[in-house]
Amino acid sequence: MAPAQQAAIAEARSAIQPTIRPTVPALEAMLHQPVHVLDHGFVRVIDYMGDDAAIVQAARVSYGRGTKRVQEDTGLIRYLMRHRHTTPFEMCEIKFHVKLPIFVARQWIRHRTANVNEYSARYSILDREFYIPEQQQLAAQSTVNRQGRGAVLEGEEAAGVLAMLRDDAERCYAHYAAMLNEDETDPARQGLARELARMNLTLNTYTQWYWKTNLHNLFHFLSLRADSHAQYEIRVYAEAMMTMVDAWVPAAAQAFRDYRLGAVTLSAQMLAVLRRMLAGETVTQETSGMSRREWTEFSQSVLDARAAEHQHGR
Amino acid sequence: MAPAQQAAIAEARSAIQPTIRPTVPALEAMLHQPVHVLDHGFVRVIDYMGDDAAIVQAARVSYGRGTKRVQEDTGLIRYLMRHRHTTPFEMCEIKFHVKLPIFVARQWIRHRTANVNEYSARYSILDREFYIPEQQQLAAQSTVNRQGRGAVLEGEEAAGVLAMLRDDAERCYAHYAAMLNEDETDPARQGLARELARMNLTLNTYTQWYWKTNLHNLFHFLSLRADSHAQYEIRVYAEAMMTMVDAWVPAAAQAFRDYRLGAVTLSAQMLAVLRRMLAGETVTQETSGMSRREWTEFSQSVLDARAAEHQHGR
Amino acid sequence: MAPAQQAAIAEARSAIQPTIRPTVPALEAMLHQPVHVLDHGFVRVIDYMGDDAAIVQAARVSYGRGTKRVQEDTGLIRYLMRHRHTTPFEMCEIKFHVKLPIFVARQWIRHRTANVNEYSARYSILDREFYIPEQQQLAAQSTVNRQGRGAVLEGEEAAGVLAMLRDDAERCYAHYAAMLNEDETDPARQGLARELARMNLTLNTYTQWYWKTNLHNLFHFLSLRADSHAQYEIRVYAEAMMTMVDAWVPAAAQAFRDYRLGAVTLSAQMLAVLRRMLAGETVTQETSGMSRREWTEFSQSVLDARAAEHQHGR
Amino acid sequence: MAPAQQAAIAEARSAIQPTIRPTVPALEAMLHQPVHVLDHGFVRVIDYMGDDAAIVQAARVSYGRGTKRVQEDTGLIRYLMRHRHTTPFEMCEIKFHVKLPIFVARQWIRHRTANVNEYSARYSILDREFYIPEQQQLAAQSTVNRQGRGAVLEGEEAAGVLAMLRDDAERCYAHYAAMLNEDETDPARQGLARELARMNLTLNTYTQWYWKTNLHNLFHFLSLRADSHAQYEIRVYAEAMMTMVDAWVPAAAQAFRDYRLGAVTLSAQMLAVLRRMLAGETVTQETSGMSRREWTEFSQSVLDARAAEHQHGR
Repeated sequence: MAPAQQAAIAEARSAIQPTIRPTVPALEAMLHQPVHVLDHGFVRVIDYMGDDAAIVQAARVSYGRGTKRVQEDTGLIRYLMRHRHTTPFEMCEIKFHVKLPIFVARQWIRHRTANVNEYSARYSILDREFYIPEQQQLAAQSTVNRQGRGAVLEGEEAAGVLAMLRDDAERCYAHYAAMLNEDETDPARQGLARELARMNLTLNTYTQWYWKTNLHNLFHFLSLRADSHAQYEIRVYAEAMMTMVDAWVPAAAQAFRDYRLGAVTLSAQMLAVLRRMLAGETVTQETSGMSRREWTEFSQSVLDARAAEHQHGR
Repeated sequence: MAPAQQAAIAEARSAIQPTIRPTVPALEAMLHQPVHVLDHGFVRVIDYMGDDAAIVQAARVSYGRGTKRVQEDTGLIRYLMRHRHTTPFEMCEIKFHVKLPIFVARQWIRHRTANVNEYSARYSILDREFYIPEQQQLAAQSTVNRQGRGAVLEGEEAAGVLAMLRDDAERCYAHYAAMLNEDETDPARQGLARELARMNLTLNTYTQWYWKTNLHNLFHFLSLRADSHAQYEIRVYAEAMMTMVDAWVPAAAQAFRDYRLGAVTLSAQMLAVLRRMLAGETVTQETSGMSRREWTEFSQSVLDARAAEHQHGR
Repeated sequence: MAPAQQAAIAEARSAIQPTIRPTVPALEAMLHQPVHVLDHGFVRVIDYMGDDAAIVQAARVSYGRGTKRVQEDTGLIRYLMRHRHTTPFEMCEIKFHVKLPIFVARQWIRHRTANVNEYSARYSILDREFYIPEQQQLAAQSTVNRQGRGAVLEGEEAAGVLAMLRDDAERCYAHYAAMLNEDETDPARQGLARELARMNLTLNTYTQWYWKTNLHNLFHFLSLRADSHAQYEIRVYAEAMMTMVDAWVPAAAQAFRDYRLGAVTLSAQMLAVLRRMLAGETVTQETSGMSRREWTEFSQSVLDARAAEHQHGR
Repeated sequence: MAPAQQAAIAEARSAIQPTIRPTVPALEAMLHQPVHVLDHGFVRVIDYMGDDAAIVQAARVSYGRGTKRVQEDTGLIRYLMRHRHTTPFEMCEIKFHVKLPIFVARQWIRHRTANVNEYSARYSILDREFYIPEQQQLAAQSTVNRQGRGAVLEGEEAAGVLAMLRDDAERCYAHYAAMLNEDETDPARQGLARELARMNLTLNTYTQWYWKTNLHNLFHFLSLRADSHAQYEIRVYAEAMMTMVDAWVPAAAQAFRDYRLGAVTLSAQMLAVLRRMLAGETVTQETSGMSRREWTEFSQSVLDARAAEHQHGR
């Protein structure tokens, strides 16, 4: 990180003020500090609103006197998560600053229920920074899953891919700068408009944005993007954000891990088969009434602990 | 307010903690304190995120290096408001606790872009509190505007209306309580389910909720509900909230007053007529090309300062 | 239904035009026809966009050439539903006209992702129609579930409840009409503004609206409101709408029944216990690591077929 | 367009069915037919729901009996538009198929209130098609507006820019194809995963999507993107869509042109100055109370017809 940025963060972190708002010391300790992700990316928390107690407070407005005696806070949060009572989680809000490659940003932005301010390449000039994968991430196309990765590339093929990614990004950026002619390297040229020149950049160029969302929508994002089926390049952001959520709302985060991230949904058919099995019957795909594909999914996610671990591991 | 509630507020306000988040002393001074609205209602701020500087910070992420030198913070906020660059305002968030009559809640909830936790009459029992208008608010149906108010009712008619409102609300609540039979007033009865008994209540019964939204959506709400065309019973809430916004983000609030609340939109036709007038021509409805209705609106909102003041007054 | 309405429906249904849009004859046969719900309510389809094939078409834009060979339409729709690939379902849209009691409308409107135009009692006068439950729906408050129903009330208690509901609704409406004085029953009175008079109505008064949503959001609505835990008075609407969805998009509707309505989600802990059981171990609440409440839910939803049927039955 | 696509469109257009839904012959005539935009892009309507009458129908549900006599359909639509009564416009829905450069798609997707299915480069392979501007669109960076265009580049500079754009896009695509090695051009290589290889493409590569939205949100999109301040490369799409809206809902489209596209919003200060001018006073920036920037905007948008035309022209 550039010294100027480090100084700005140090300054932001030194401005301590008293507040009577809900405050989470564990998250305060992280505020503004970037967690580095990929080769030039980062994610950091800029601001937050609410805590575990704010979820409980909102639930108790809904349920009124009824809840006060009965349930303890953690139990109530777990109950809300288990039964998908989602609105109390919407009462917490968090704002991130993220630096990420454009092709990751394109996936991320599909989550529509967030507030976003992105660096505008129409207005300003992007930095000369591109994502080049580490070699162990240079995976082949999976042969069984059209949107998955297979074995890691090796030797000449890997070297060739890395060279192409690097050279193309560098050349495209150099031409972007030349077209802009901002420093009037060539005084005879006017320089192309920024809103046009940007189209010459490659999709691994880094951009950045402020991204603000509530805890319910964040959990939805994390359930998709911290999942093992998510593309590695977005999953690492989700995993970094998950550690921030752990610090912020520990009870809600644990409930999310138990009832969402690690959960499995059984169809009516799967449930029926499971009950036959529990009653001692041997059930095969042929006698299950499931399609081959569904049976495979059922076997992997429910029956086979090792397969399931593998599936959720990395 | 009940002593128990006063104690709870005093306790909440005494829990002071250090934070490095943006903090607004003027709003901290208001936190948790209810502003009373109507006869039993209130609105109070429970939590907030961001300040005027957070709007500027988000705008500068978007516009990058370009903006830093040029514009001062207030000027930038006014520019954003004037040009409807709305996303930076979405970076501020606020959470209210509101107590309000059900018929007002039904209007309010039509603003869909907010997070809500409402007291559940399916789960708990509503309090014995109803909105009964002050006599000066007992307006007749407007004869010119189907959704407006005319002159204030007087004498016997007013007294009759107040008596009906009071008696019907009281009787319906008494029967609600009787059907519930929660205190087993009558041990022979089982008591009707809460989710059913509530249907006997009148629409002026008070409910309450937590309502959280971002500043952009709040301004949209206020532009409709703090407007003179809004129904009085929701406008008083909007006006109370406006004073909180003034304390919270003074620069954005002023820009909102100048460019939204006090603004007038001219159609292409109105603009053409206005230019003819500025060039010295006398234009009438007949020569304006506008319909009678549009001409009336144009006259009232643009030409006649007194009419316009009247329109935006009360 | 009034003859005027019947004539309007007949007229709407007689206006047949050619179209090259996707068209579903089974739903065309239902268009405009109200399905009666509760004592005075109804739901009817006014318009729709898309069909099962439109879901497939959208998925294939996303997945490109890849999907064409592999999957048949129904298989692809089931795959999308099972894996919560929700965006293709958003490509179908449906518009309903619903007449419903206000307390049901208040629950319904909490689903924010829909377009709504409700009859305005600020602008117009509501009809003299209230929901009075059938006696078999007059349930006592559940003693185990704070938002559930217990046994049906009987004898004098039931009769007393029905009398109170009827009398209070009638009296409140009569006073509403008197305050309005629209027919100038009493020429000496001005008549109270409609936006005020409405507050005297009880929550079982009927309102109506146009409600338009996409298929994904409709499925979310139905998963909550066609569920056995939903309040009876909204569930009957959801069930009526489900029959319309069956006619409209039969493959998606069946996938929804199998993978959403009839599905059960297992937490990480439940899954671990299940695997121990499948391996032959006897697991009790004490050895399960689950809380008593969670164990009860697990037993009812997974282990006990009869309990589960009961739970999802009515 | 490829013969296969032409055949698919012809087939889609030949499947005529009877419907009792609102149908718009002028839009039916356009259905499926692509309007070509930029060098390889297009936009076409795939499906629609509703028409001008559906807007009126929804408004009348809201306003009830009150509206029936008074207003004619077009007058009511104009009234709704003028007063920003937006919900009736939400009752119409339209679905487009769009092919567009990625940098345009990134701008477009910021409109969050739409349903989208985009071609997935994680799953499938993008076509070898890039946007290369026509020479008259190769504008220099504006010297007065950071996100605007200045004079058109000429001679060697223009030729140089075009060569760079073409060569870089071609080379990046060739390397993308080589990394994928899908045809096993080089049988010794495994081929890089699609989700990784795509990062080597330039931002002028074409993508495509289905994009579905309601008429209110579409008008919001068009008010920003059919405006003269929008970037040319997205404005041409907005203009093509505007012609489709003209065919679909002619009364709403005309009201939108009059009260939104061609409208100007005056701040409280501008309105006060205008009234002084109409009263015969000569007002200058110094005596106006406006900042220099605001005065310039006021002069250009309100006072100077030619400036205003220029501003809204092209």
